[in-house]
Amino acid sequence: MSNHVYKKIELVGSSPNGIEDAVQNALSKAAETVRNMRWFEVVETRGYIENGKVAHWQVTIKVGFTVEDES
Amino acid sequence: MSNHVYKKIELVGSSPNGIEDAVQNALSKAAETVRNMRWFEVVETRGYIENGKVAHWQVTIKVGFTVEDES
Amino acid sequence: MSNHVYKKIELVGSSPNGIEDAVQNALSKAAETVRNMRWFEVVETRGYIENGKVAHWQVTIKVGFTVEDES
Amino acid sequence: MSNHVYKKIELVGSSPNGIEDAVQNALSKAAETVRNMRWFEVVETRGYIENGKVAHWQVTIKVGFTVEDES
Amino acid sequence: MSNHVYKKIELVGSSPNGIEDAVQNALSKAAETVRNMRWFEVVETRGYIENGKVAHWQVTIKVGFTVEDES
Amino acid sequence: MSNHVYKKIELVGSSPNGIEDAVQNALSKAAETVRNMRWFEVVETRGYIENGKVAHWQVTIKVGFTVEDES
Amino acid sequence: MSNHVYKKIELVGSSPNGIEDAVQNALSKAAETVRNMRWFEVVETRGYIENGKVAHWQVTIKVGFTVEDES
Amino acid sequence: MSNHVYKKIELVGSSPNGIEDAVQNALSKAAETVRNMRWFEVVETRGYIENGKVAHWQVTIKVGFTVEDES
Amino acid sequence: MSNHVYKKIELVGSSPNGIEDAVQNALSKAAETVRNMRWFEVVETRGYIENGKVAHWQVTIKVGFTVEDES
Amino acid sequence: MSNHVYKKIELVGSSPNGIEDAVQNALSKAAETVRNMRWFEVVETRGYIENGKVAHWQVTIKVGFTVEDES
Amino acid sequence: MSNHVYKKIELVGSSPNGIEDAVQNALSKAAETVRNMRWFEVVETRGYIENGKVAHWQVTIKVGFTVEDES
Amino acid sequence: MSNHVYKKIELVGSSPNGIEDAVQNALSKAAETVRNMRWFEVVETRGYIENGKVAHWQVTIKVGFTVEDES
Repeated sequence: MSNHVYKKIELVGSSPNGIEDAVQNALSKAAETVRNMRWFEVVETRGYIENGKVAHWQVTIKVGFTVEDES
Repeated sequence: MSNHVYKKIELVGSSPNGIEDAVQNALSKAAETVRNMRWFEVVETRGYIENGKVAHWQVTIKVGFTVEDES
Repeated sequence: MSNHVYKKIELVGSSPNGIEDAVQNALSKAAETVRNMRWFEVVETRGYIENGKVAHWQVTIKVGFTVEDES
Repeated sequence: MSNHVYKKIELVGSSPNGIEDAVQNALSKAAETVRNMRWFEVVETRGYIENGKVAHWQVTIKVGFTVEDES
Repeated sequence: MSNHVYKKIELVGSSPNGIEDAVQNALSKAAETVRNMRWFEVVETRGYIENGKVAHWQVTIKVGFTVEDES
Repeated sequence: MSNHVYKKIELVGSSPNGIEDAVQNALSKAAETVRNMRWFEVVETRGYIENGKVAHWQVTIKVGFTVEDES
Repeated sequence: MSNHVYKKIELVGSSPNGIEDAVQNALSKAAETVRNMRWFEVVETRGYIENGKVAHWQVTIKVGFTVEDES
Repeated sequence: MSNHVYKKIELVGSSPNGIEDAVQNALSKAAETVRNMRWFEVVETRGYIENGKVAHWQVTIKVGFTVEDES
Repeated sequence: MSNHVYKKIELVGSSPNGIEDAVQNALSKAAETVRNMRWFEVVETRGYIENGKVAHWQVTIKVGFTVEDES
Repeated sequence: MSNHVYKKIELVGSSPNGIEDAVQNALSKAAETVRNMRWFEVVETRGYIENGKVAHWQVTIKVGFTVEDES
Repeated sequence: MSNHVYKKIELVGSSPNGIEDAVQNALSKAAETVRNMRWFEVVETRGYIENGKVAHWQVTIKVGFTVEDES
Repeated sequence: MSNHVYKKIELVGSSPNGIEDAVQNALSKAAETVRNMRWFEVVETRGYIENGKVAHWQVTIKVGFTVEDES
């Protein structure tokens, strides 16, 4: 296990509900094509404003996943 | 639209409820005097503690808004 | 009051529920041994993923507390 | 002169032509209301893409200007 | 639109002509295989020197593009 | 009190005497127009040199002040 | 050569032996699917501890490789 | 001597007089319980404002001290 | 397991042999008094020079360990 | 070639024309006394303003050059 | 004047008296061999401790000076 | 000794063997012309890849040395 290699990709998830939901949305979309996702790191949190209110949150994360053996 | 100029101001919002609410409180107060707010970026998240519990969250954001034409 | 000295310690709290809960969990554990906690600063936000979903959030904070007089 | 006080504001200028033009656009707009602008610092450079080409550049700057005496 | 997920990739473009051209070269190459590129952020600007002159500029950018639905 | 909103502005103060005096000079000038200043953070310290000696110190600070109610 | 475009990916390699070996392990795994790797940059160095000893090193790198022509 | 191990702790000292005095106040308080303090690094400088004047300086430092042998 | 709380401490280890050995020396000394150390992060790498050669390496790490239950 | 040693120096170049010209001006001046300059990295971009227009750009770069053998 | 080229060097000055004095000591020593020093930027502030007191301050600065014409 | 002034220079050393060797190579080359080198700080670690293997490591360091008296 100490020889595992991981790859990290950078994603931006959005949600009108909040930070946690924006992260989950990014992970759900990524899970359609990426297997073995293990952890994420929040890189940036921002959002768009409409009429003085938060319209949606936009959270940038890095996601680490195990690089599988080719065989 | 590609010639828009934006100004960014730095605000600190507070709330006993959480990060999202602290951001919204800052935006609501700013909306009293600033028009055309477009986006925000979370710069710092901190909070005050009372009796071992989070008393209130304090979130610093930068808010970007369109600089309107003078005429 | 202007001569107070504070010490800051670094903690990592976890929670399946979200960022705010992870911070509170770290503070509750620290409150068992540390008195006079005054403020915290969020240093890093990350989490672990299971089956494409956030399994638990992991938030690193610095906590400041008053260094009490020795007498 | 060694007692001057300056204020710094943060602006985002845009231009389809390039970085230098985006900065100048921000300054031209600011010059409508701010006097005594002295220097700027480039904080961030980004841009929007349409059809695989840079549609417009977007440069964030801080602008320093002399705070004038009240009398 | 508030539920969009974006992926960011990191590219290095080169050009003997300048920063803007190096960025466009990176985007043009990426456009051969990546659809829906939306924005870029300049991460680093450097260059190589020959005979005391800039031989070519080398600009590192992050490019954000919409992750399309799988169906 | 936990719902206060603060605004932060960035100032540069100068003084031939030292860092503390440069900060106070910035605050004194700001106090002519800004009410309810609460705290400052030192962002950058630099200075100008004449004949091998520090001619004056130049300290950049961010100043936080309470945003007052509109009524 | 001055018009080359490079892509950078982020990998995490592990090894019980040390930093250099962890980097080489990440490169060896990547070489199974990526051609034309040219350089790497160490982003973060960390490790896991068992019984007071380093169990394995974990090094995050960015790897740059030439984006090949599509023909 | 080349095998010494040091521990670093983070402290915040305050003083109405200035930066140097705030650092010394933090060290004096720490010296009541920590032996063998060797060096400090200034991490952050800030302060509180009353009536447009610096009420007290608040300086965050890291202090390194030799970890003594257990026997 | 998702509710664990960790504390992080900052240590500086030294060794004439290299970076890995300096880290292990810091961990060995810490293991005399700290239980349940789980991971470390390298914060800074430096060293002292004698006669144009590296006399000893000095590596600053943060060490995370599980905060045990009080009962 | 893998044993080359490089030295990096920090320069600030100026130009009324733009960023690329400011960098080239710094290199041209350095080329009068430094041989074997190989690459540069842009560290900071700023400029001075006169009458609401960019008077000249000022770009800080680090320049790497091969340290030649003493014989 | 808009075509001036500056070089920046990094110095560490020391003083038992405080930050300002440590900076001046570095400048005084540099003035023995460097002409045309124009400005400095404080990069790092630290110090050594003896018997729980600051023994001397150690301030790292970057100093910018005009590169003179070769003729 | 508390009045010493140090100068810091930035070097890049290379080695096919590893990080420690790359640092020593930079110091050995510098020792040909610089006296009184006292310490170094690792600024950046990178390397070049050939055929999926590390061809050589390239480590950027800052080296501090005592500025000697002119007499």
